[in-house]
Amino acid sequence: MKQSVALITLGVSDYERAKSFYEALGWSPTLEIEETAFFQANGVVLVIWARDKLAADSGIADDGASWSGITLAHNVASRKEVDDEIEQARRNGATVTREPSETFYGGYAGVFRDPDGHAWEIAHNPGFGLAPDGSVILSLD
Amino acid sequence: MKQSVALITLGVSDYERAKSFYEALGWSPTLEIEETAFFQANGVVLVIWARDKLAADSGIADDGASWSGITLAHNVASRKEVDDEIEQARRNGATVTREPSETFYGGYAGVFRDPDGHAWEIAHNPGFGLAPDGSVILSLD
Repeated sequence: MKQSVALITLGVSDYERAKSFYEALGWSPTLEIEETAFFQANGVVLVIWARDKLAADSGIADDGASWSGITLAHNVASRKEVDDEIEQARRNGATVTREPSETFYGGYAGVFRDPDGHAWEIAHNPGFGLAPDGSVILSLD
Repeated sequence: MKQSVALITLGVSDYERAKSFYEALGWSPTLEIEETAFFQANGVVLVIWARDKLAADSGIADDGASWSGITLAHNVASRKEVDDEIEQARRNGATVTREPSETFYGGYAGVFRDPDGHAWEIAHNPGFGLAPDGSVILSLD
């Protein structure tokens, strides 16, 4: 199995609400097919789709849980961008579960949850490189 | 907020078990720091970290839920690769929740859950392009 992640699908209870939330953050669907939004990101594609359809398609009995141990991270180039993006998410209906603050690894980060509870860390990590497309650079080899 | 996902962190209950599982699938940590494994993928980085630490760091009260509406997809170039990778995951302790079969969009996919319940779809989608690094190509522009 190659070391790659093609898509991250976020199941949502209200498609239009979820799409509007990400659009308010500045995202724009690259492709939209029958209430499925595909956002081309840095290599990986973020997908918004009805949670009940995703559960059925995945063969998973959904108990409606809110967090199952997955947090997505969006890295930025400065502490100010962390503050700004957390405020932008809050203004658009996100719940901020971690106010921007120092991290144990010497960075600075905040966490919000989108209207469906999916968790995003907005982080500035001076220990990692950051490519122009938003990818973290672990090493230069 | 730029359209990018820097990291996907999977919280796990047993770090060594989780790392061994992904290594058995052919993944190799690019960087490992104090029971945190960083796997460089196609732009995005997959991270394995203790779930309790991730919950605390994210400011989230964890109720131990199994699936919260997120499925990761790993796309491959053929149906045979779907079959092979699902079998490889099963042999290494994954639970297969969708046996490889035709999809509604004209592709072929199976889904497994890793030892912590994180869901992976292994998919062949002839409607999308597939880059050598495993990224899906939505469009050529």
